[in-house]
Amino acid sequence: MNPGGKLPQVDLGETRVIAIAPRRGLGIGVIGYGYWGPNLVRNFSDIPGANVVAVADLDLRRLAQVKQRYPDVFITDDVDALLARADVDAVVVATPISTHFDLGMSALSADKHVLIEKPIAATADEARLLIAEAARRRRVLMVDHTFLYTGAVRRILEMDRSGVLGRIHYYDSVRVNLGLIQSDVSVLWDLAVHDLSIVDALMPRPVGVMAYGMSHVPGHPENIAYVTLLFSGNQIAHLHVNWLAPVKVRRTLIGCQDKMVVYDDLEPSEKIKIYDCGASLSMDPGSRERLLVSYRNGDMWAPRLDGTEGLRTEALHFVDCITRGQSPLTDGHAGLRVVEVLEAASQSMREGGRMIEVPRAEEADLRVV
Amino acid sequence: MNPGGKLPQVDLGETRVIAIAPRRGLGIGVIGYGYWGPNLVRNFSDIPGANVVAVADLDLRRLAQVKQRYPDVFITDDVDALLARADVDAVVVATPISTHFDLGMSALSADKHVLIEKPIAATADEARLLIAEAARRRRVLMVDHTFLYTGAVRRILEMDRSGVLGRIHYYDSVRVNLGLIQSDVSVLWDLAVHDLSIVDALMPRPVGVMAYGMSHVPGHPENIAYVTLLFSGNQIAHLHVNWLAPVKVRRTLIGCQDKMVVYDDLEPSEKIKIYDCGASLSMDPGSRERLLVSYRNGDMWAPRLDGTEGLRTEALHFVDCITRGQSPLTDGHAGLRVVEVLEAASQSMREGGRMIEVPRAEEADLRVV
Amino acid sequence: MNPGGKLPQVDLGETRVIAIAPRRGLGIGVIGYGYWGPNLVRNFSDIPGANVVAVADLDLRRLAQVKQRYPDVFITDDVDALLARADVDAVVVATPISTHFDLGMSALSADKHVLIEKPIAATADEARLLIAEAARRRRVLMVDHTFLYTGAVRRILEMDRSGVLGRIHYYDSVRVNLGLIQSDVSVLWDLAVHDLSIVDALMPRPVGVMAYGMSHVPGHPENIAYVTLLFSGNQIAHLHVNWLAPVKVRRTLIGCQDKMVVYDDLEPSEKIKIYDCGASLSMDPGSRERLLVSYRNGDMWAPRLDGTEGLRTEALHFVDCITRGQSPLTDGHAGLRVVEVLEAASQSMREGGRMIEVPRAEEADLRVV
Amino acid sequence: MNPGGKLPQVDLGETRVIAIAPRRGLGIGVIGYGYWGPNLVRNFSDIPGANVVAVADLDLRRLAQVKQRYPDVFITDDVDALLARADVDAVVVATPISTHFDLGMSALSADKHVLIEKPIAATADEARLLIAEAARRRRVLMVDHTFLYTGAVRRILEMDRSGVLGRIHYYDSVRVNLGLIQSDVSVLWDLAVHDLSIVDALMPRPVGVMAYGMSHVPGHPENIAYVTLLFSGNQIAHLHVNWLAPVKVRRTLIGCQDKMVVYDDLEPSEKIKIYDCGASLSMDPGSRERLLVSYRNGDMWAPRLDGTEGLRTEALHFVDCITRGQSPLTDGHAGLRVVEVLEAASQSMREGGRMIEVPRAEEADLRVV
Repeated sequence: MNPGGKLPQVDLGETRVIAIAPRRGLGIGVIGYGYWGPNLVRNFSDIPGANVVAVADLDLRRLAQVKQRYPDVFITDDVDALLARADVDAVVVATPISTHFDLGMSALSADKHVLIEKPIAATADEARLLIAEAARRRRVLMVDHTFLYTGAVRRILEMDRSGVLGRIHYYDSVRVNLGLIQSDVSVLWDLAVHDLSIVDALMPRPVGVMAYGMSHVPGHPENIAYVTLLFSGNQIAHLHVNWLAPVKVRRTLIGCQDKMVVYDDLEPSEKIKIYDCGASLSMDPGSRERLLVSYRNGDMWAPRLDGTEGLRTEALHFVDCITRGQSPLTDGHAGLRVVEVLEAASQSMREGGRMIEVPRAEEADLRVV
Repeated sequence: MNPGGKLPQVDLGETRVIAIAPRRGLGIGVIGYGYWGPNLVRNFSDIPGANVVAVADLDLRRLAQVKQRYPDVFITDDVDALLARADVDAVVVATPISTHFDLGMSALSADKHVLIEKPIAATADEARLLIAEAARRRRVLMVDHTFLYTGAVRRILEMDRSGVLGRIHYYDSVRVNLGLIQSDVSVLWDLAVHDLSIVDALMPRPVGVMAYGMSHVPGHPENIAYVTLLFSGNQIAHLHVNWLAPVKVRRTLIGCQDKMVVYDDLEPSEKIKIYDCGASLSMDPGSRERLLVSYRNGDMWAPRLDGTEGLRTEALHFVDCITRGQSPLTDGHAGLRVVEVLEAASQSMREGGRMIEVPRAEEADLRVV
Repeated sequence: MNPGGKLPQVDLGETRVIAIAPRRGLGIGVIGYGYWGPNLVRNFSDIPGANVVAVADLDLRRLAQVKQRYPDVFITDDVDALLARADVDAVVVATPISTHFDLGMSALSADKHVLIEKPIAATADEARLLIAEAARRRRVLMVDHTFLYTGAVRRILEMDRSGVLGRIHYYDSVRVNLGLIQSDVSVLWDLAVHDLSIVDALMPRPVGVMAYGMSHVPGHPENIAYVTLLFSGNQIAHLHVNWLAPVKVRRTLIGCQDKMVVYDDLEPSEKIKIYDCGASLSMDPGSRERLLVSYRNGDMWAPRLDGTEGLRTEALHFVDCITRGQSPLTDGHAGLRVVEVLEAASQSMREGGRMIEVPRAEEADLRVV
Repeated sequence: MNPGGKLPQVDLGETRVIAIAPRRGLGIGVIGYGYWGPNLVRNFSDIPGANVVAVADLDLRRLAQVKQRYPDVFITDDVDALLARADVDAVVVATPISTHFDLGMSALSADKHVLIEKPIAATADEARLLIAEAARRRRVLMVDHTFLYTGAVRRILEMDRSGVLGRIHYYDSVRVNLGLIQSDVSVLWDLAVHDLSIVDALMPRPVGVMAYGMSHVPGHPENIAYVTLLFSGNQIAHLHVNWLAPVKVRRTLIGCQDKMVVYDDLEPSEKIKIYDCGASLSMDPGSRERLLVSYRNGDMWAPRLDGTEGLRTEALHFVDCITRGQSPLTDGHAGLRVVEVLEAASQSMREGGRMIEVPRAEEADLRVV
């Protein structure tokens, strides 16, 4: 520091333009500044190659917050005003699910690239139309399946692809907490979608789904649900999602042929623990009716993970795909597959847990034609 | 101590008879010294009012272990020899499930009181016959639903009865580990039975059950299963049982109207945590589409629990019921109810998770007539 | 949202002045935008009644960051330029310890109220001069003992004052992690200062201190240290601070006459656990040489805590004290007391752990005259 | 099982002699059946090659317990009666510390091999005399430093010897709990001895020790103590032992040049976690006054450990040393070294934490001559 003030009096206030040249790069318009929007605006403001130029919301108080934090950002309560702006190259939709389709289509129709908060749409048909429109206009359509961009999930996918884990036997996830309840959709569309996006990347397409849920808040959709995904082979995935739990739990067990993985997203470090425990069986000397399952060596290993915020990695990927004209990891088809399973799960939940078939991937594509 | 040996030379070896008078009390005969038997013998040896006098098993090595630890106990590989002994007042059956009925009936026919390891029998019909035979001969018939005798579960039941918790919304249990696989029965009959016995004591009788499971060990019964219990009111119970998990988990979430309970049986202390969090709802200022669930006061409370081994409390209860001619907490009917649910769950699992009705309690009793 | 754009086209960009009236309130100038500065700027920007108007730092890159996040804030690398501004009512000093005194005195001389990052100064004499200058000019002088403003510590202090805990027997803190090492001061002046500020508020003034530390990084000050504080009564406080630990630990045990407290600052919830365990003693039946310490009732209780960021509460308190002309909870004297203990601890560490007396509080005040 | 009783009526009660041949092997006499004695008797009863033949205690109730569990064991309240028995080849002393010397000498004088509970004696001089007497009579003298026989500590020692860890910088142990208070010795002699035995095996001989403790139970020795061990190089060991803590903690941090180890003895599995974090230093871009300590790769690794009860491994080692005429891992000299540090620590505690030199190893041996 310089208490004596010996240095020449340079007021950097003036030299600011030099200090920070106006950010070049993609102009981002964000629609919806409610629960998730602020995180999107913050991340797109911080990354290179992009620049948040406009934010739209119907709530003036929220717009005021935007103005206070980002004085140079154009704010409006009129989506069309945002879409009409030439400096908006890409639009991020962070509004209630029921509006994803209309807003997504409006943005694509205005020739904007589009990133939509999960789930991509309220129905599979809506998702298909978004995919078709994006294809027609050669725009990037991406869905915000955030977890796929976290260091933890990316590491699990790497290990799976490298063959280290061996064949997946089961995927078991518990994603519960006490906090926010959505009044427009069930817990499936809020919490289960996260696991469905991970399962979509990690396992084959499920052939059927069974879901059972219940509401304990009169007049509100299900706040607790159990989902079982069936596959053609003897694999299984099961999700427990719950808005009314006493504690927050984000724990996934992945049982594989050669390794077993515990993924606890609440662990500050060591989010992933890999157990070297193939189920090598032997008779239990203590009891002739029992098989002893023994660890192959029993060591546990917790790889260090990239700590970058998933949303930042995702924002960079979105910008990169637009720049290079490539298709994103979580493109419209990924969004569609997840919505198809959500639709089947919701139908199963309505029908008391009956098994509902999930349409085959091919069909999904065919229908788009 | 007495290094100098000043004290008069009293060799207590001789005075032993005085030192420890021959234990009076019930004579206990234990059938089966495999996985669970040693715990039963140890506990019945340590409690007042009872005395293990005989142990039967087909395995000579195990019988040798008994002799080494308890030289005065009569050992045999012939059940009839054990049942024929006049000093055997009560019999404990700790053998494979398939033999529970035959051995239980033999013991009752020999006018012995009977405690049978969980589940009480392989079928509901077997359980009904055992109940009827015990009633006819006025013998105590008890099933080893151990968890109901632990300090943790007893405390939960107390709080429920006292009305502190409020109406139960859901019971969610995860009981998984890597270790022993039974080759004769599925994981349902080994692990789920524990939770079913707790649910039986805590909640109304379920009206239906759905179960989905899978085997990853060729030629063996299901090693992973998910069970959903349906009730007449909007209550739900769900169990995840798994023999092939990387970690051991014994965690139950009980969501109630006024309190929420986390019961983690692996916690050395603080096995039970009670959260004072009624779901008082309000609009989330941050988003008009979300309800804010707030804690009533948010304090958490972990009552100190009786640390007595559940099996010891159970053994004392068995002896007490015999002495007083009373019916045990976990009598034949409790055993029957759990087996009825297990049968329904197993059928559902065979039929790919279809909902199977659980017979109404009355019917169960009627059929016995 | 408004996909159809039916609403009248109101561009809030213009109405912004109405939307958010220019923030009235105290003008805050922040000196130092390194490790802690950004947190200070963020918090003083968010609270009502204050407004960050200027930031000074020698590093142009950091100033550029300020400009990008807060375009309306005046930035400079000349402290005098900041102190010369009429719109700066109060100054926050977040620079290396060695500069606290010069910058604090410069700010006070410019008639600014001053908040200085912990510790308040590099020596007790410097602290005394700051106290005297602030008194002379009737300015608020406050030290950033952040932890005293957290919900957890405030709750502990409340319980202590209400007499719930009973007399404190010992305060034991472990504050270790792997991450940043300061090259200008030892771990005492970086980590131990936090606990010393808590002990200062919770316990009587220590009469002596013993400290032993070691450096494992050639040419750097001690990275591990153990500090023992002695009191006139039979109370003790002990700190373990360590920059080179494999895991991050922030756990404090506070043993009192009636209750024992575990304060784990890393717990997401339940940071404070209170054990109802007075040491009621009895002979251990198992051994005549041992006393059995039994819990009074053994229940554990985790009160819900105010989750407000400590630094926000602290910023509000600073503003409040200036507005009301009151003396802050962590005033210059609190800062002085902590530095006096730090000085004694550092001397003890230099002298191989020899016990060093801590000057009596009165002397401290006297010397100021 | 055999409900039908088809098998020939073979009463194994008679064939017992064949079933279990009378145990051959060393005859063990145990003196003291209080807190630790039952564990010793149980383990020496279960291992091959040894046989508990006699138990002495002054308390008739305890002797009765022995008789009930082990009817064939000779019990007495006269040590000389036990020592006089020809079938007692080795004696285990599990009595209050003050009696270790007299009982140990009496046993050696009777030409018995001796295993003494930790610490080996109440003073270093007593320990030296025991060493000398054992040498003269060519008997095995072993001290019960149990932790050195656990899978966890053995694994740490292996890794240290193999050079995987690199040079040890510090050993930091917290060993606290609420439970038993000894009325005859301070917490140092009860809890610290465990860590001192581990440090003795892991690190060079300390050159000095500083200890500070306090009693909160009137008329009883210190129940809380902090011990700092000084070494010739820049290594340090620090112990926190406490009988009046709200929670049980058994955590040791071992910081080394190449790896850091967290040893948590209360973890059911994963007692040892190894962090690959060499302190590679770099300037923190965020602050020119801070060094960034970064992990070498940051992975964490938890090796699977031998789960055998330490006391069993120790009992086998004692028997093995006697049979082969070898010197045990924890021989009299190990016991002496630990007592020398305990004596120095106790003196330091009496003198308010003053640094007390630990006698050089050579001197210790010389004095024996």
